[in-house]
Amino acid sequence: MDKSRSGRVILAYSGGLDTSCILVWLLEQGYEVVAFLADVGQDENFEEAKKKAQKLGAIKMVVPDVRKEFVEEFIWPSIQANGVYEDRYPMGTALARPCIARAMIKVAKEEGAKYISHGATGKGNDQIRFELSAYALHSGIEVISPWRLPEFYNRFAGRNDLFQYAKEKGIPLPVTPKSPWSMDANLMHISYESGILEDPMTQAPEDLYQMTTDPLTAPDKPTILDIEFKNGTPVSVYNHEDKTKKTDALDLFLHCNEIGGKNGIGRIDIVENRFIGMKSRGIYETPGGEILLAAHIDLEVFTLDREVRKIKRDLDAKFAEQVYRGFWFSPECEFTRDCISSSQKYVDGTVTLKIYKGHVYILGRKSPYSLYNEELVSMNVQGDYDPIDAGGFIKINALRLREYQRLRTESDKQ
Amino acid sequence: MDKSRSGRVILAYSGGLDTSCILVWLLEQGYEVVAFLADVGQDENFEEAKKKAQKLGAIKMVVPDVRKEFVEEFIWPSIQANGVYEDRYPMGTALARPCIARAMIKVAKEEGAKYISHGATGKGNDQIRFELSAYALHSGIEVISPWRLPEFYNRFAGRNDLFQYAKEKGIPLPVTPKSPWSMDANLMHISYESGILEDPMTQAPEDLYQMTTDPLTAPDKPTILDIEFKNGTPVSVYNHEDKTKKTDALDLFLHCNEIGGKNGIGRIDIVENRFIGMKSRGIYETPGGEILLAAHIDLEVFTLDREVRKIKRDLDAKFAEQVYRGFWFSPECEFTRDCISSSQKYVDGTVTLKIYKGHVYILGRKSPYSLYNEELVSMNVQGDYDPIDAGGFIKINALRLREYQRLRTESDKQ
Amino acid sequence: MDKSRSGRVILAYSGGLDTSCILVWLLEQGYEVVAFLADVGQDENFEEAKKKAQKLGAIKMVVPDVRKEFVEEFIWPSIQANGVYEDRYPMGTALARPCIARAMIKVAKEEGAKYISHGATGKGNDQIRFELSAYALHSGIEVISPWRLPEFYNRFAGRNDLFQYAKEKGIPLPVTPKSPWSMDANLMHISYESGILEDPMTQAPEDLYQMTTDPLTAPDKPTILDIEFKNGTPVSVYNHEDKTKKTDALDLFLHCNEIGGKNGIGRIDIVENRFIGMKSRGIYETPGGEILLAAHIDLEVFTLDREVRKIKRDLDAKFAEQVYRGFWFSPECEFTRDCISSSQKYVDGTVTLKIYKGHVYILGRKSPYSLYNEELVSMNVQGDYDPIDAGGFIKINALRLREYQRLRTESDKQ
Amino acid sequence: MDKSRSGRVILAYSGGLDTSCILVWLLEQGYEVVAFLADVGQDENFEEAKKKAQKLGAIKMVVPDVRKEFVEEFIWPSIQANGVYEDRYPMGTALARPCIARAMIKVAKEEGAKYISHGATGKGNDQIRFELSAYALHSGIEVISPWRLPEFYNRFAGRNDLFQYAKEKGIPLPVTPKSPWSMDANLMHISYESGILEDPMTQAPEDLYQMTTDPLTAPDKPTILDIEFKNGTPVSVYNHEDKTKKTDALDLFLHCNEIGGKNGIGRIDIVENRFIGMKSRGIYETPGGEILLAAHIDLEVFTLDREVRKIKRDLDAKFAEQVYRGFWFSPECEFTRDCISSSQKYVDGTVTLKIYKGHVYILGRKSPYSLYNEELVSMNVQGDYDPIDAGGFIKINALRLREYQRLRTESDKQ
Repeated sequence: MDKSRSGRVILAYSGGLDTSCILVWLLEQGYEVVAFLADVGQDENFEEAKKKAQKLGAIKMVVPDVRKEFVEEFIWPSIQANGVYEDRYPMGTALARPCIARAMIKVAKEEGAKYISHGATGKGNDQIRFELSAYALHSGIEVISPWRLPEFYNRFAGRNDLFQYAKEKGIPLPVTPKSPWSMDANLMHISYESGILEDPMTQAPEDLYQMTTDPLTAPDKPTILDIEFKNGTPVSVYNHEDKTKKTDALDLFLHCNEIGGKNGIGRIDIVENRFIGMKSRGIYETPGGEILLAAHIDLEVFTLDREVRKIKRDLDAKFAEQVYRGFWFSPECEFTRDCISSSQKYVDGTVTLKIYKGHVYILGRKSPYSLYNEELVSMNVQGDYDPIDAGGFIKINALRLREYQRLRTESDKQ
Repeated sequence: MDKSRSGRVILAYSGGLDTSCILVWLLEQGYEVVAFLADVGQDENFEEAKKKAQKLGAIKMVVPDVRKEFVEEFIWPSIQANGVYEDRYPMGTALARPCIARAMIKVAKEEGAKYISHGATGKGNDQIRFELSAYALHSGIEVISPWRLPEFYNRFAGRNDLFQYAKEKGIPLPVTPKSPWSMDANLMHISYESGILEDPMTQAPEDLYQMTTDPLTAPDKPTILDIEFKNGTPVSVYNHEDKTKKTDALDLFLHCNEIGGKNGIGRIDIVENRFIGMKSRGIYETPGGEILLAAHIDLEVFTLDREVRKIKRDLDAKFAEQVYRGFWFSPECEFTRDCISSSQKYVDGTVTLKIYKGHVYILGRKSPYSLYNEELVSMNVQGDYDPIDAGGFIKINALRLREYQRLRTESDKQ
Repeated sequence: MDKSRSGRVILAYSGGLDTSCILVWLLEQGYEVVAFLADVGQDENFEEAKKKAQKLGAIKMVVPDVRKEFVEEFIWPSIQANGVYEDRYPMGTALARPCIARAMIKVAKEEGAKYISHGATGKGNDQIRFELSAYALHSGIEVISPWRLPEFYNRFAGRNDLFQYAKEKGIPLPVTPKSPWSMDANLMHISYESGILEDPMTQAPEDLYQMTTDPLTAPDKPTILDIEFKNGTPVSVYNHEDKTKKTDALDLFLHCNEIGGKNGIGRIDIVENRFIGMKSRGIYETPGGEILLAAHIDLEVFTLDREVRKIKRDLDAKFAEQVYRGFWFSPECEFTRDCISSSQKYVDGTVTLKIYKGHVYILGRKSPYSLYNEELVSMNVQGDYDPIDAGGFIKINALRLREYQRLRTESDKQ
Repeated sequence: MDKSRSGRVILAYSGGLDTSCILVWLLEQGYEVVAFLADVGQDENFEEAKKKAQKLGAIKMVVPDVRKEFVEEFIWPSIQANGVYEDRYPMGTALARPCIARAMIKVAKEEGAKYISHGATGKGNDQIRFELSAYALHSGIEVISPWRLPEFYNRFAGRNDLFQYAKEKGIPLPVTPKSPWSMDANLMHISYESGILEDPMTQAPEDLYQMTTDPLTAPDKPTILDIEFKNGTPVSVYNHEDKTKKTDALDLFLHCNEIGGKNGIGRIDIVENRFIGMKSRGIYETPGGEILLAAHIDLEVFTLDREVRKIKRDLDAKFAEQVYRGFWFSPECEFTRDCISSSQKYVDGTVTLKIYKGHVYILGRKSPYSLYNEELVSMNVQGDYDPIDAGGFIKINALRLREYQRLRTESDKQ
């Protein structure tokens, strides 16, 4: 692999100790490094990181703002798909990775770089999501994943080795002590894992959460929101309390985050199954996402035909697995998103919700395309419905059951 | 159908106005009536109902206590199956119907009755659940469903007709005014629907709820519970606050109800798709059920292999539809329950939860059979895991994606 | 229902004894009758039927030729969907019913008729397919189904009653004796059922088959066909033997029928599950359909991504059930067809088949959009494939299995 | 990996050039080699292979006869599961691999060997099936896969290198020229792939097939078989022609092979999707398997409830994918087999088939546990079936469709 000793590499750079060491190590191996940090809404000093990267020897640092496309092109399709992995995890990290990877591959093409590199570990999902996206978008790209290279991970076996290397190379050491867990943040969520959280019985410490208020100290007064959808996509949020209305996708999402955050919405503590085949424990907070998911599912049942929804539900489960496993840019996920999207044509309407101390309550919903027929369902109105038909319906459905009992009773095995 | 003018009928009798009128009407048609009211944990004056039935002319009234079998034989399998219809409704009514129908068919056989009768409407799910169970368990039974008989529903077109009939026949009129909705209660839940709730945008009035405290007025101090499972079935609940531990199935469930109830757990407002093909709006409160479902799903991910769980999840969805539609006693539901039950062999362990103002929080979990391996997943321990393998794993997974991009790009359709 | 005593009815009329009696009976009840017989390619003397209907008193008889739309709008989507019910039945009847019903509803609207009527029995699928299509396309239509009306079926309890009635009413009696089974024919298939075929162990007599030659007497020389598809739809058939090429949809299908027919292709003898809940035994011959289905499935695996195909396969199964049960015109079937259709964008290419004595053999296939990469798969060329990666792929896939064995062995239940 | 230079290795040895070279190469690397060749019914001179292995330096050669367990423990469950990958491939190789791997791991344990080795290529499925089975059964085993080791595959880049090496090391060269494709044989099937078959449009040459007669030259007289099942497993085959009856599992299977083989049954030419992510083209002949699969599916529809079968069908598809991908010994495949097996309790009975020139025809079936009710389905007997019920059944099923049309028409989007 002599060739890998030369050439340009785009490095996903966070400004932290790990990727700073990787940056310097890549230079040491003879690469030219372009640092890359996508703004997906995380709380980060991008200017600081830029300066640091350049000081360490990067040719330059690119910091694209992909927040809007993250919301519109990744989060919205996931809301349409009621995107939740293993029934609980709204996939904040899994949705951001392909968005980031796409921006990075764009830079790689612009810079004529043959390599990309990242600091993800060799046991996680993110290496997979990142690299599958990269390979799918740029078939010829090569990936340098130091934490999977023996020459790297044997050299930096413990945190002390990184410190030592940083000191030697003039890499500024972190001033704040590392929290006893790792985290990943974007505008959709923050995830916390590893460290003390690896014991699945250890409770998450209260000071861990950064996006959400503790429900115990959240406001005593609920907030009421109206969330409006078109084609299964949120188009406005109206806050009954302060009478604000947000219609821009990014504004709307951030407002949901704000309301969800201050009311303690979207905290979960789960064990999940990584693609790599191991179980891991994660704490997540997804305040705005949980509100929008609750609203969408409510409107969907209201507007979609029952049987269409059943088929779509299977597709939703497939979507969630595809995304979680890093297959956003795959033929199957494109197909699944196409199908799901075509199901949302009539998912228009407004859902009213109450947000209070960690829980989202649906209060009501309306839609110009609802298949709900108040008159038909009414106990007081017979309407164009003949109850006698129900008797025939039941008798025919019972036919198979009665036959089964009769024949199995006649001839049952001992 | 002259024969139907004579003979004995078992009537599902609630003591209310409707079934009282039906009782008298059946007598009028020449039937002998045995009144039947199963105790499934609803808040009911069974003695009062009994007296009333006999006063109205019933030969006798049978009131079996099926609470324990309801919990053990119907709720527990549903917990194992994470039984939730259309992702939200825990099926409190749907689970009770086959339990009640089974008890009723037992009485029909004992009494040599050829008929059963009930007061369910012709637009709902309950007529179906009730009758499919009955036909499946007693192939020759005949069902008299007055609200589907023109001679009945034409005669009693409005509530006034029932009042008029009651007055004529000496049926005691209800002393309390009817609430502007209907409800169905058992130990698992109360459901509210119709009347003012038929408008899907009308909020449920606060005085509607009977099992749960309003989260706004619920205790400010959370309750911590440990729920222990064996084979996916709850075997004990330990309350950290009052140090009580419940191990009897019925006690355990009622304790979860109590804790859930006072903390405002399990209120939902949904639109759902009835089997009959119409959408309806229901308000439900399922306090204990929601707690146990949250605990079970957590333990299941912890102890089941990922791929087993994925297969089981499809079965869970089938189970929920079968039960919702009234097919508990069907070959497919028996088969589904068998499969699900066999998946639960190792779902043993304890989940710790925090219950607070309408929301259930998972705090941690442990199990003797967990497939979670703290050492394997650890960021700090490499263990018996070679990170290089992950590179190959990713490359092979990317093969298909890269080929797809390459070939589709080469030969893409315009 | 006095109103039903007057008004105009469109009767699905075959010219046979049953529907002739129904025609006269409807007139007797006071209806005006418009006879209707769709040409779906069955072997029928349409002129004869027309004269007969008018002689019996029909206002007129409408005989639309729907063969082309049957092929293009019903059979083609089913080929795209590999449409086979319960893994064996290519649904020749199930596909024709919605096509016929649509044409009939068109006539009903043109004629201002409030009613439609048919001679399907009360135990079969066809009444359902027919009526669900009608209701879906014309919400207000009313259906008169004599074989479900006691006043009709009690009067005509046996075949003799029909004969008697025919004699009384001057309805010409059939000159040929009725075969001891019933059949339904269209250009896609002929089905045979009931009568002596009701015993599932009785073999179909050789003189039953009408579309296909007995494989034992079929030509000793195979026929080679090239079938070309665009978007998963057949666009040409080339016959290597006689050098003919058919490109018109109807011609193409009929040529496949001809080749399939003379080579004894597409005979099946199955038991199937009717929607009504009973099992029935049917003999079918679908010569052209079987050839096209075999070709399509081959090309599909060749051109579709593996994971897309897997998702589509689930949709195919749903499509088959929807169509079999009569839900062609339903939101779910529209959605399913949309999804399936969008999957077929690249299913272009040609499949070469050998047709010989009852069996279809695939000989080869080619496509401009195949995802098959001869170089990549070659044993002799390593290409852009690193075999070391496979080792990592396997080890990571094994991780979960090894953990499972290790943990279950350590802690196994007794 | 110094340790890998010493120690004992069990080598899957076929006696051919490749594995002979591997054997010698392993000795060269310092391993002790135990040669292993499972008898799965392939046409092989086991004594010859044994002598050769020992001559080349193997400590010993173990040749277990696993034919019976292959049939009973692998093929039978696959028959129960209607085991066919991607709707066409009956998985003859995929079923044999776990059987062979299990026998090999048994030897590894007996011999105290730390390593196993095989000659499978780095692009195929077999390496995966083999190794996943090995890891699942013996978590600590290590696999030496020379065709994935650069030091091996770079040295033996072409066939000439193997010849050269063989000459140097005194390995006997093959006397017959290698066919221009590779094959894998066992008692269930022979597969052919690669070489000239890599072009998916090239027809398989007629002299390729070894298990089956060309249908063109197969007997002109059909053979009639009765195949009897208990619990979905074949228990006897009766041949109407020669009046023989086979009841031993191995005899029975071999008899089906013989009949299928001489009548040209079970030849397929397909493109399939390998687990590794590439498409490959394979020719297979599975004479007995195709017969048994056709019989089983027929009996299954006859005896299983419709809805049970539908659920089982999904499980069947999962089973096929699991087995094809090498996950026989996995928690999910164990679970799937358990569920499938429990569905087969009543799949007892006899199917009569006609075998003729490449095609299997079902003639009839009978069962003590059929859910087929001849009287119920009869057109001539009304029985305990009220046709009026069907009207109600249809109307209720139409309710949703009518509503959909009505509401969508009222409010349709432009």
